Amino acid sequence: MIQIINFALMKIALAQLNYHTGNFEHNTSKILSEIEKAVKAKSDIIVFAELALCGYPPRDFLEFDDFIERCEKELERIAKACADIACIIGAPARNKSYGGKDLFNSAYFIADGKIQSVHHKALLPTYDVFDEYRYFEPGSEFQIVEFKGKRIALTICEDLWNVVPAGLENELQALYKTSPMDSLIKQNPDLMINIAASPFSWDRSGIRMQVLAENCKRYKLPLFYVNHVGAQTELIFDGGSVIFNSEGKQVCRAAKFEEELLIHDSTDLSPNAPIAEDEIELIHKGLILGIRDYFKKSGFKSAVLGLSGGIDSAVTYVLAQQALGVENVLGVLMPSEFSSQHSIDDSIKLAENTGGKYDIIPIKDTYNTLLKTMAPSFGDLPFGLAEENLQARCRGIIVMALSNKFGHILLNTSNKSENAVGYSTMYGDMCGGLGVIGDVYKNQVYALARMMNLKGEVVPENIITKAPSAELRPDQKDSDSLPDYDILDPILYQFIERRKGPNEIIERGYEAATVNKILNLVNRSEFKRFQTPPILRVSSKAFGMGRRMPIVAKYTL
Amino acid sequence: MIQIINFALMKIALAQLNYHTGNFEHNTSKILSEIEKAVKAKSDIIVFAELALCGYPPRDFLEFDDFIERCEKELERIAKACADIACIIGAPARNKSYGGKDLFNSAYFIADGKIQSVHHKALLPTYDVFDEYRYFEPGSEFQIVEFKGKRIALTICEDLWNVVPAGLENELQALYKTSPMDSLIKQNPDLMINIAASPFSWDRSGIRMQVLAENCKRYKLPLFYVNHVGAQTELIFDGGSVIFNSEGKQVCRAAKFEEELLIHDSTDLSPNAPIAEDEIELIHKGLILGIRDYFKKSGFKSAVLGLSGGIDSAVTYVLAQQALGVENVLGVLMPSEFSSQHSIDDSIKLAENTGGKYDIIPIKDTYNTLLKTMAPSFGDLPFGLAEENLQARCRGIIVMALSNKFGHILLNTSNKSENAVGYSTMYGDMCGGLGVIGDVYKNQVYALARMMNLKGEVVPENIITKAPSAELRPDQKDSDSLPDYDILDPILYQFIERRKGPNEIIERGYEAATVNKILNLVNRSEFKRFQTPPILRVSSKAFGMGRRMPIVAKYTL
Repeated sequence: MIQIINFALMKIALAQLNYHTGNFEHNTSKILSEIEKAVKAKSDIIVFAELALCGYPPRDFLEFDDFIERCEKELERIAKACADIACIIGAPARNKSYGGKDLFNSAYFIADGKIQSVHHKALLPTYDVFDEYRYFEPGSEFQIVEFKGKRIALTICEDLWNVVPAGLENELQALYKTSPMDSLIKQNPDLMINIAASPFSWDRSGIRMQVLAENCKRYKLPLFYVNHVGAQTELIFDGGSVIFNSEGKQVCRAAKFEEELLIHDSTDLSPNAPIAEDEIELIHKGLILGIRDYFKKSGFKSAVLGLSGGIDSAVTYVLAQQALGVENVLGVLMPSEFSSQHSIDDSIKLAENTGGKYDIIPIKDTYNTLLKTMAPSFGDLPFGLAEENLQARCRGIIVMALSNKFGHILLNTSNKSENAVGYSTMYGDMCGGLGVIGDVYKNQVYALARMMNLKGEVVPENIITKAPSAELRPDQKDSDSLPDYDILDPILYQFIERRKGPNEIIERGYEAATVNKILNLVNRSEFKRFQTPPILRVSSKAFGMGRRMPIVAKYTL
Repeated sequence: MIQIINFALMKIALAQLNYHTGNFEHNTSKILSEIEKAVKAKSDIIVFAELALCGYPPRDFLEFDDFIERCEKELERIAKACADIACIIGAPARNKSYGGKDLFNSAYFIADGKIQSVHHKALLPTYDVFDEYRYFEPGSEFQIVEFKGKRIALTICEDLWNVVPAGLENELQALYKTSPMDSLIKQNPDLMINIAASPFSWDRSGIRMQVLAENCKRYKLPLFYVNHVGAQTELIFDGGSVIFNSEGKQVCRAAKFEEELLIHDSTDLSPNAPIAEDEIELIHKGLILGIRDYFKKSGFKSAVLGLSGGIDSAVTYVLAQQALGVENVLGVLMPSEFSSQHSIDDSIKLAENTGGKYDIIPIKDTYNTLLKTMAPSFGDLPFGLAEENLQARCRGIIVMALSNKFGHILLNTSNKSENAVGYSTMYGDMCGGLGVIGDVYKNQVYALARMMNLKGEVVPENIITKAPSAELRPDQKDSDSLPDYDILDPILYQFIERRKGPNEIIERGYEAATVNKILNLVNRSEFKRFQTPPILRVSSKAFGMGRRMPIVAKYTL
């Protein structure tokens, strides 16, 4: 049976905006300006995202009473601006009953210049990077919004995520015992509106669309979905606000990684084919947005980073240039006695290819002075890890000195593969204000470089083709201590993203010794990752807030 | 009305043990050995703490299927050992119904060598350092355990924490809509057993006892309470397992910060006056245990730290000596041109007072070489923060070199006051594997030093009495840029522990300009604290897992 939905014209405006956590002035003025635009475009209702008012995630800001008071004040301002338009907007609400958490994560329905009703999120994501039950009491009552003769089933993000579309049983699970839509459907709604704060991840990008479509099919209702766009420290929101018809077919979609006010008549729900998306392109756009917002929202303009001659720093350099402007990125070559000439040449070529700024500051004198200083303590002990780390830390100290002196933010260039196995030096190459590619596996870094070169060489070919090396001792190669990235990366993916144990990974056809060695390296590096900079998250399981492993623990079972 | 409880003898053994997260071999063998002891002592039942089997907190280990499988296997081993004794033990249990989280946080009741029943925790702490709803489905059914004619109301830690004793309304709140004991009491229990994983904090130490006593009074039942002891990275469990009678009077209590098997007859519930506790003594014991377990559980023996001549490094040095043995702690003096002679003399005196090891490694050459190296970049810019940080980082690189070369763990000596306001250098004095006093306010550090000196001078008096200084430029004093610690510490406490906003703090009688300046410093340092080492937690709100503030955000409302 196909249900024919036939209702009078209602113009719905979906405001996909880039908020700044805690910056009420910024957020409210943006919201007010979109309300004005939507009124001019004769929209009946404008919809803002989950917790749009304060930005997402507000984290422990929510535990401060003065923060909640400010939310309430801003909400009043916004309500007053809604004389000629209705509005749905996400903001915290106080739990006024006895018992339970202090707050709800709520959607406010505003019309005629006043808050008409408040709707509380029931399903509170508390996994990966999400901590919502830390702050919020789950909603337990569900009520339709009636507006201009339409009955709207209003939900918040995760509220729609308790369905598991066929074929996704390995990707998703029903994490809750109830679903708000099961209650709301009994009140005969005409359409669904969902306000969300759903971050980007390359390996879950399609799943969001499938879940939303599944809700349309299950409840036989069209869906208007509005998401955040923009980065909040490590979390990157990709936008992609979307309208589905009651058959779960996409009607139209807002841009990805950009702000947009998407205005659509609710009567026109004819489907449009979705545009195919390339994973590496999405990662690329996500990282650019992540860098840009980190700098813009923290009030910095310029970046510094070490250029080693390797692929990671090269790709980070180009990403930073694309995000901040070529003139705002300084690459620093810091050769040592173990640096090969090609590392220097390749880095210079990279700078020349891009017209970028670079500086050369050799570490030789500092390193030798340190060796001399340490000599009485080190005695006759042979060259080893301590000396390798000394070099990495000489570089760290130099780029941090430039950062302090000139107000550049130091970008960390470690990739996910080396972050995973601890192939990095604390307070050396692990320094930085932001980890740009720390959630990008080595093979994805190569793919990014190749993509950057599609219209002509940006990253010198030699950087892409030569064997990777840390160059901390003579003739060192990554492959001396690590398996090929074609083996390493998929094993890491199974362990980190898929949470498979060693036996399950070995069953997939990898050598037991290799698997055990790699997993052991990952586990033994927890103490290092604890002190890593925030890492731009582009996968479903990035190091940082989303992965919480004990440090002082025994890992092998 | 006083209810007279009169039941036949039942010997209950409370096993207060120091577990190691993920170390099943260690935990199970400890558990089996206590079972044996309890059998020999003719106990009827032995009680182990919450999630004793795997250690607490297991964090994302719980998301690995092989970890849960191992838990199940160990549980079977333990059950088999319980032929002659009953046992209650905490371990995860799988949620076998559709929907909800994969696991329960459960208490297993074992008798006759078999698991007889499983009881799920209903109130899942998800605040501060706790993330239990991240992993666990809340239990919703409650059943009495019947054993030897007694009816036991068995609950898990937080399950008893939904009561607010009179007078604690500002300290506690009812965070849940239901309480398991309200259901269990209807089944006419004779006593309560609660298995817990309740970490130490100096400012909440008494509250735990009041909450437990309140349950006894409310339900008119005696309580047998068993807690963890020992440190898991930053979390320090203080033990203090306790028995209360049905009037909420303490019957007996296990040691604090030590393992103990407390065996008690359930008929003898005459009260004993609790021993008064000194806050600084508790912090002292907690820190010693925290250091010791960090090293023991991660397989390290020796520590290194910088000795600046100041109070923080002096107290950390002595704490480390007390935890690890004098011979296992190396203090390193790293004077610069700005170091005063008294800093050097005082540090040497400290080492001599304690018979401790020290080394002197001046940073002058490294610092000057770095200045020369940076000169072409720095040009004519005046001496400033970059040069100050260079010195701190020279020291960081030297102690890390010793750490790498000799396998010492570097101890971080930053106190909570300076961690709060960001009075520290990333990759410099912020280096370290473990932050020993990072949750101890400056004035508490002084109190620790005074306590250490009670039986004769350990920390040289001059270190305690002189004005604190970072000595990174001529004649620098902490008081140049910070208010007195007598003002700073209480303001920080109100903001951090009590989550008061600026207006509320100013209302308590502090100068507005001072309050705003300090809060601004705290907020602006979030990016630094993100990369801080794990910090031993002794308060109710330590930096780290328990305090989750956004980095790229606007803070002033």
